[in-house]
Amino acid sequence: MREKGLLIVLSGPSGVGKGTVRKEIFSQPNAAFEYSISMTTRLPREGEVDGIDYFFKSREEFEILIEQDKLLEYAEFVGNYYGTPVDYVRETLNSGKDVFLEIEVQGARQVREKFPEGLFIFLAPPSLSELESRIVNRGTETEELIRQRMLAAKAEIELMDLYDYVVENDHVEHACRRINAIVIAEHCRRERVSILYKKMLEVK
Amino acid sequence: MREKGLLIVLSGPSGVGKGTVRKEIFSQPNAAFEYSISMTTRLPREGEVDGIDYFFKSREEFEILIEQDKLLEYAEFVGNYYGTPVDYVRETLNSGKDVFLEIEVQGARQVREKFPEGLFIFLAPPSLSELESRIVNRGTETEELIRQRMLAAKAEIELMDLYDYVVENDHVEHACRRINAIVIAEHCRRERVSILYKKMLEVK
Repeated sequence: MREKGLLIVLSGPSGVGKGTVRKEIFSQPNAAFEYSISMTTRLPREGEVDGIDYFFKSREEFEILIEQDKLLEYAEFVGNYYGTPVDYVRETLNSGKDVFLEIEVQGARQVREKFPEGLFIFLAPPSLSELESRIVNRGTETEELIRQRMLAAKAEIELMDLYDYVVENDHVEHACRRINAIVIAEHCRRERVSILYKKMLEVK
Repeated sequence: MREKGLLIVLSGPSGVGKGTVRKEIFSQPNAAFEYSISMTTRLPREGEVDGIDYFFKSREEFEILIEQDKLLEYAEFVGNYYGTPVDYVRETLNSGKDVFLEIEVQGARQVREKFPEGLFIFLAPPSLSELESRIVNRGTETEELIRQRMLAAKAEIELMDLYDYVVENDHVEHACRRINAIVIAEHCRRERVSILYKKMLEVK
């Protein structure tokens, strides 16, 4: 008996290194989850392959998918659409495999509405915890700089409230190790496991 | 800034291999938690050292500790008391270190009442998931044997309801890997991390 797969959503502020962490996770030979390829209307860059880097679609095709509610989340950046096809995600989860999404924070918000049971991981910049030593050693920084950093940190901490886990991206390998640990742990959660056992007994 | 340590409670049915798993975890050079040594009134066995294997106490000493509410949990087995001194646990958690307890299920129930925020891990026998194939291939087992196994499984699944995680003890190393992953994941939980960040900002 196999449980439904987990939907793992990695997000965080832009520039935090989500793409690097995601690539590192999928470079591991034993990566235990499926990567959900995004769809975009932007043109392929040199070397990019349709169905590997992105699904490349025309603006018209993309807008039909929006109308048909076939996107788990989507957004427009500088004139191009980016989104996650929902069918692939549902089919893969139903087959018992975990699906990994790496998306922007506004996309993560949309996914939370449709898949509240997903596993949401916020990748946090190490600057947040560096903040503490900066505050403690405040003589070395101007008051204005500290004030700005604290405002930025507050905004980031408010973003976190949507998420189940916060992983600091201090080193790519550490971040990957924590993300893998989170997925292993979630598969051991009692609610999940005992439902499986209870179903097993009903088979009787 | 350091958060308070986690109280990790490993328990499960007797004979499931709790002691073996605990020893394997603490044999790792990078074991990241402190082991809470139990107290007992039974006599030391050959080679057992006071303060390493157990704290050996007289029955009178133990009963004074019970009266003074100095035990996180205790129970009597075949005429001897076994228990967990509470002061060591509190002091170690307050110093920011994680504390690991390996105790019987009735002890775990007592700890849950005093430390509801603890992390409770149920070590499950692999026989539970073997049950499925036994049920599926029922021609090879007598009806009565299957019925007995299912009753035993039901009783074990009911025990699980107190716990946060269920780890199957299929192989000692796998079980240890999952337990370590659970502890790493729990340290990344958003509630925990964002409280830390919020405290950091209050320092201002």
